[in-house]
Amino acid sequence: MSENKVLQVPYGTKDLLPGEAGAKRKMEDNLATNFSQWGYAEVQTPTFEYLDTFALGGSGITEESMKFLDRNNRTLVLRSDMTTPLARMVATRMGDEKDIKRLFYIANIFRYEQTQAGRQCEFSQAGVELMGTPEPMADAEVLALAVASLQTAGLDKFKISVGHIGFLAGLMEEVNLTGQEKEKIKQLVLEHNAVDLENYVNTLSIDEKLKGVLGRLLFLQDGQDMLKKLQKNVHNEKSYKALENLLQIFAFAKAYGVSKYLSFDLSLIRNFDYYTGMVFEAYTPDMGFNICGGGRYDTMMSSFGKDCPATGFAMGIDRIILALQREENFSSKADWDVFVAWEAGFAQAAIKKAMELRAKGKKVKIAFSSMNEMEAEQNTLENNCTSLVYIR
Amino acid sequence: MSENKVLQVPYGTKDLLPGEAGAKRKMEDNLATNFSQWGYAEVQTPTFEYLDTFALGGSGITEESMKFLDRNNRTLVLRSDMTTPLARMVATRMGDEKDIKRLFYIANIFRYEQTQAGRQCEFSQAGVELMGTPEPMADAEVLALAVASLQTAGLDKFKISVGHIGFLAGLMEEVNLTGQEKEKIKQLVLEHNAVDLENYVNTLSIDEKLKGVLGRLLFLQDGQDMLKKLQKNVHNEKSYKALENLLQIFAFAKAYGVSKYLSFDLSLIRNFDYYTGMVFEAYTPDMGFNICGGGRYDTMMSSFGKDCPATGFAMGIDRIILALQREENFSSKADWDVFVAWEAGFAQAAIKKAMELRAKGKKVKIAFSSMNEMEAEQNTLENNCTSLVYIR
Repeated sequence: MSENKVLQVPYGTKDLLPGEAGAKRKMEDNLATNFSQWGYAEVQTPTFEYLDTFALGGSGITEESMKFLDRNNRTLVLRSDMTTPLARMVATRMGDEKDIKRLFYIANIFRYEQTQAGRQCEFSQAGVELMGTPEPMADAEVLALAVASLQTAGLDKFKISVGHIGFLAGLMEEVNLTGQEKEKIKQLVLEHNAVDLENYVNTLSIDEKLKGVLGRLLFLQDGQDMLKKLQKNVHNEKSYKALENLLQIFAFAKAYGVSKYLSFDLSLIRNFDYYTGMVFEAYTPDMGFNICGGGRYDTMMSSFGKDCPATGFAMGIDRIILALQREENFSSKADWDVFVAWEAGFAQAAIKKAMELRAKGKKVKIAFSSMNEMEAEQNTLENNCTSLVYIR
Repeated sequence: MSENKVLQVPYGTKDLLPGEAGAKRKMEDNLATNFSQWGYAEVQTPTFEYLDTFALGGSGITEESMKFLDRNNRTLVLRSDMTTPLARMVATRMGDEKDIKRLFYIANIFRYEQTQAGRQCEFSQAGVELMGTPEPMADAEVLALAVASLQTAGLDKFKISVGHIGFLAGLMEEVNLTGQEKEKIKQLVLEHNAVDLENYVNTLSIDEKLKGVLGRLLFLQDGQDMLKKLQKNVHNEKSYKALENLLQIFAFAKAYGVSKYLSFDLSLIRNFDYYTGMVFEAYTPDMGFNICGGGRYDTMMSSFGKDCPATGFAMGIDRIILALQREENFSSKADWDVFVAWEAGFAQAAIKKAMELRAKGKKVKIAFSSMNEMEAEQNTLENNCTSLVYIR
């Protein structure tokens, strides 16, 4: 056992020091307050689930899952997202599937990752799930709440890309691609590999006009006018309805006053299999990863025995803090109001004074040994206290 | 894969439903505010540590530890207490051992347990660690803060038993017991097995007067007068100093106004090996387990390369909630201020109204489809909203 190893935190994890943890709590509390102003109720689930729960949820069990065996040799997995556990919870514990349910969570998530800025093996997410309605107005609420949440967290320079799973799915169905061909296209889209995508689509024996749409999917990024134009060029119902759905959502987003943050990106499909409709991701300038993402997943709940449409998002708390730090817009200093020091023989009087100040709501540190006034002033500074009360 | 298994949470874990999770957050926030009023700063550590860290910390790796291997085959353990991770963090990240450090945490803890009321495999703790001072006044601060924290959580009917590791340790050293004999006595004390303890001590070849103290240890529960009497009957320095230390702490506790909650119990030794001085546990009536416990651990930090005295406590959030529920003193209903419903064609006006109300701090739910006013009134009730705003 090397001393060095003992003193490390595990790969991909970190400590939050004084100030940092308090600033994070404050952000999370502000988010919680904001979520409840939008009608969402907080829930919590266990840190780990049975592997089978995640397998059923459609988020998949991957190389990234942190697995272990319980004492009965059943495989547990540290939760790698919160959507699956919430679906499991709602299906088993929360009554009628026709009720509309607005839920939020703030939770740690675990995945083996190659760590880099914004990518940790343990990280913190805040998110919402809105269950029980297929209405575009519900997707707009989720988008608008994402905007309000990012603002609540202190960000203002961010953009949200909005896509729809149905658009690409409709195109691929229309041209009768094999499962393998579909997977290849999805992979190239997820990799944002525009050149290989176009080349690959050109090898397929499909309608030339559709090649133009499918092969150039990664360039279909623009405002609502693009959606209207595409509706004229798309001849399958699924893709057409996807565009129509996005236009409806956009109209509600305008009423919410958040349309200025939105632009459309029809190549956005996100890397969870459970999405079925509108999907979105939020970005800040100069960060190579999204800070928030989500979308509609109308079929997952039926895997858990409840047929129930759903939409939602998750935001990465650590990533948002990183973005705020880069903007020099994140304060994480721990400080206190009063340092109570005392001359020898006055310890008990000092205790009473400290308790009086605390009863008035002050943040107070007390000295554990007597000191003179000059030492007390020095200690006030060293303890990050704003003022000194010296008892003698 | 049975459906039943998929829909279960893992053994010893639980979901917190709407209302429950919110009430827990509120309690934790109140505790966090209280801790910072006493000068404590929040910190966070990873959910898991290298096994070696826990082995070094003295809390021991037991059958209860939840272990797993990382991708490099190093053993990780889900944290089974927070004292060890905090000691590791302070030793590696937080500078001078002479500085006084006041830290708090609110964290999930993991142990395989036979579950029963108040005993879960995943549970939530709030606690403090006060590092850098051996002063009795520091132990009194920790005791007084425990009282203030339990009050903040909403409890008032609780009692705190206070003991000292040095008292029993001194007695056992005085009579030159073997390691095995010491372990046997510790075990009987931890089991509260008064009959077997007295019988066992009677088999030992030690001074008759000491047999009376050691054999009847489980009955040494009383106020400070008992400590003064015992000082006359105890002839080793360690036990005498332990009693003296408790009397000093008690004097400061009086100044804090918390002495009425305290009584002494010299058989209290707690089941972590790292304690070295004053130890305590808090109980509420009719609960068969403590809701808060802690004490002084002056040697653990040196295992991490920093020689630094320390004291602290942890309280069980779930246990406190259970105690409050039994007192019918825990409100966990999720509710909202306003339900905004709308006549067909007024969705966008309803959205604007909802946003106005939220800007005023109201908690608002909005309908996703049009309804008449009578339906809206019904929905207001079903959504746990206090009032209805109907837009037409």
